[in-house]
Amino acid sequence: MGAWMDWRNFGTNEIPMILDLMAVAVFAVSGALVASRKQMDIFGFIMLGTVTGIGGGSMRDVFLGRLPVLWVETPIYVLVCIFAGAIAFFAAHRFRSCYRFILWLDALGLSLFCVMGAETALSVGAHPVVAVIMGVITGTFGGIIRDMLGGEVTLIQKREIYVTAALAGAALFVALIGLQLPPSICWAMGFLCCFSIRGLALRFSWSLPGRNNNANTG
Amino acid sequence: MGAWMDWRNFGTNEIPMILDLMAVAVFAVSGALVASRKQMDIFGFIMLGTVTGIGGGSMRDVFLGRLPVLWVETPIYVLVCIFAGAIAFFAAHRFRSCYRFILWLDALGLSLFCVMGAETALSVGAHPVVAVIMGVITGTFGGIIRDMLGGEVTLIQKREIYVTAALAGAALFVALIGLQLPPSICWAMGFLCCFSIRGLALRFSWSLPGRNNNANTG
Amino acid sequence: MGAWMDWRNFGTNEIPMILDLMAVAVFAVSGALVASRKQMDIFGFIMLGTVTGIGGGSMRDVFLGRLPVLWVETPIYVLVCIFAGAIAFFAAHRFRSCYRFILWLDALGLSLFCVMGAETALSVGAHPVVAVIMGVITGTFGGIIRDMLGGEVTLIQKREIYVTAALAGAALFVALIGLQLPPSICWAMGFLCCFSIRGLALRFSWSLPGRNNNANTG
Repeated sequence: MGAWMDWRNFGTNEIPMILDLMAVAVFAVSGALVASRKQMDIFGFIMLGTVTGIGGGSMRDVFLGRLPVLWVETPIYVLVCIFAGAIAFFAAHRFRSCYRFILWLDALGLSLFCVMGAETALSVGAHPVVAVIMGVITGTFGGIIRDMLGGEVTLIQKREIYVTAALAGAALFVALIGLQLPPSICWAMGFLCCFSIRGLALRFSWSLPGRNNNANTG
Repeated sequence: MGAWMDWRNFGTNEIPMILDLMAVAVFAVSGALVASRKQMDIFGFIMLGTVTGIGGGSMRDVFLGRLPVLWVETPIYVLVCIFAGAIAFFAAHRFRSCYRFILWLDALGLSLFCVMGAETALSVGAHPVVAVIMGVITGTFGGIIRDMLGGEVTLIQKREIYVTAALAGAALFVALIGLQLPPSICWAMGFLCCFSIRGLALRFSWSLPGRNNNANTG
Repeated sequence: MGAWMDWRNFGTNEIPMILDLMAVAVFAVSGALVASRKQMDIFGFIMLGTVTGIGGGSMRDVFLGRLPVLWVETPIYVLVCIFAGAIAFFAAHRFRSCYRFILWLDALGLSLFCVMGAETALSVGAHPVVAVIMGVITGTFGGIIRDMLGGEVTLIQKREIYVTAALAGAALFVALIGLQLPPSICWAMGFLCCFSIRGLALRFSWSLPGRNNNANTG
């Protein structure tokens, strides 16, 4: 007791937070990369990194009414973003060579966030459909806000399989929870589902077919 | 009693929700049309449709502090958006021919939303000026977010009479409520005011005069 | 007592609100100037002015969970924005000649907002790091939303010293409060810090060095 830490408690409470912080950091770096492409100054790196890292989760918290948002209560989330943005600024010249590596890290972040966002929504009693949407929002809106602030084409305009992967992961997680499987199994399956789909899309440059109103498919 | 439904209760409680859902669906289709123009995939259609359908109302709820936002409590709103976006994806080739028809449906949606947004604000005790603004936000911000996410010129940059119509409808509704007329009259007048102005603007391609700082009008 | 007003109370409670309203008005005018550049109609001026004037503060209030947001409780904030936007519409042709004057007014608004945003966050018990971030959000997000809605390059994409000035002012204010100096001193120092940095940047067209991933600086 006292200062002792029960490893099972560590397992259920601390590991997710560490993973969560890693996902936040990876997203912050992806934001800083956009800042790099736009040749922003160091505060542009930090700001775009922070918005990307915590934007999706903040939006989820606002819609669910879990206020103040997470990073106001737990400032370590912002500190991680600031740190990641600043490091990215001084190491920007190195990132070019590991651009694809960062895409894979980003896929990891997406997979973690979509499951965690859905879990957070379920934990406050949201409807399963809402939980899936919260998973998608948590995973993708940081990147969408990043693209809007940085003046990039937003990721929902690209037909890369990104939103789709988050949707699949969150939906599988929520479905398995509904079947009352152990949370850790649901968690792992949702994560793997999103990561596999996103990973295959990255590996084989998959994209989904688009539709426009000039098509003569009718 | 029991399973029986009093038609007057139906009249005051259920009809508005059906109308509200119809307005949400129309807005979702207008979002999906932007997705179509940008040749997005099916999830782009659904996402842009959903954001357009529930974006304005979500923003209003957040500012008023009515959290969680409506669609978290009543997921039917999101389901309607998802459904509308998916249908629009498979029928996108048909929408081209009925583009003007959709503009008119959108005018209906705008007219409903501006009155409902103002009513919601009044019902939580907001100041009349705030209620008018909430009407405008509910009616127009779904479309503004749609344009930003889809990379279009936002509707406030166009001089079409759109924000103006929502403002007029919401202001008339709030003014008549202030005169203590029966709510259904206020409702109908606000709706008709917005719809007439927007309809005339559509019919005659009206626009308001702009000003810029190069003008020599002084 | 009674209708009498103690000047010290006036000093601590009323002056900040008057300054706050002035800062809101200045920001609203800067929003209206973007509307002017885009040749919007009068409602575009008012809308962009309002979003710029109260956008940053609204965002801060939402993240902190201080809902409903300030202008719902105190509609004078929106009225000032509407008024400023409308005046700007009719006087747009005069603004061209005083563009630099408005940049200086905007620097005043930024300096007031960054300190007030940080103070608001501290007053609800936020962590110092969070308070600094809330200062930056309050000072800069109105302008960022203005640029996004108006289709301009957002201010974080420019390397002008703007975010930096807000950050420095908010950080100094929070640090001095942490040293338990009298609030009025902290307030004045934070304000002057932000205003000096922004003013020097305006005067000498300073900007910060950028980084991009093509640089060979390693």
